[in-house]
Amino acid sequence: MECRNALLEAEGDIQKAFAILRERSLLKAEKKKTRSVTQGLIEGYIHAGGRIGAMVEVNCETDFAARSDAFKELAHNLAMQVAAQEPKFISKEEIPEGVDAEPLAVCLLLQPFIKDPSKTVQDIITEAIAKVGENIKVSRFVRFELGEREDGCP
Amino acid sequence: MECRNALLEAEGDIQKAFAILRERSLLKAEKKKTRSVTQGLIEGYIHAGGRIGAMVEVNCETDFAARSDAFKELAHNLAMQVAAQEPKFISKEEIPEGVDAEPLAVCLLLQPFIKDPSKTVQDIITEAIAKVGENIKVSRFVRFELGEREDGCP
Repeated sequence: MECRNALLEAEGDIQKAFAILRERSLLKAEKKKTRSVTQGLIEGYIHAGGRIGAMVEVNCETDFAARSDAFKELAHNLAMQVAAQEPKFISKEEIPEGVDAEPLAVCLLLQPFIKDPSKTVQDIITEAIAKVGENIKVSRFVRFELGEREDGCP
Repeated sequence: MECRNALLEAEGDIQKAFAILRERSLLKAEKKKTRSVTQGLIEGYIHAGGRIGAMVEVNCETDFAARSDAFKELAHNLAMQVAAQEPKFISKEEIPEGVDAEPLAVCLLLQPFIKDPSKTVQDIITEAIAKVGENIKVSRFVRFELGEREDGCP
């Protein structure tokens, strides 16, 4: 029904119909972003033969969604992103006042996605929300690099 | 040579000779515990279908030792221990003053090893030092459980 309406609206242009459908699904995803999330996955990623490691907690609404391939793939991509791109915060809102940081470089959600730099990490989360049909949030992450300490000491 | 001496000392009792050798190797391991460690591995362990995750940094002296099976096994066991036993600190020395905590329950190194509770975690590290021939230290670990936050907030 939704597809037929989009096709009618696009006057039979299939590419245009796809674009309409994609936009609607992302709009629906936007609306889901206020719903509370208590389920999800902890995912880890070890890189460079054990010299770098990352762990993320990604939350969704139900355990059913957490077990879906789309959600698992997102969690894996996020752990990989943290390992590779060293974000310092999740979002711009998390940067403490007085800290002079470049949000685009330091915030996970604003970083270009390593596997497709034409999208941000927030974009791939929004796409996953559209696929899974539930709100999704990154609640925390951690990154270890060999020989570096959390406190910045050698 | 070492074996023959131990056998002579044990008056031909092979079990006793093994015990002598084992003790000597652990004594040597003790001596190595002051040597500095800059190499090692970051190892992760995801448990209970993604509901619990742990990550550890284990250090040794050379990259060669870090790639040995004995060291990899130790790193894996430590990550598993952290996931299963929820230590709060690495060692007794790390418990902040004024914190009323039971060292045996909260410190990783003092916990009984989950795969063999007759040993402590420190024991399996000392054994690995004896096997690998280098000093080994756990420098940090982190544990995530789904829905719990680092700050203790729900």
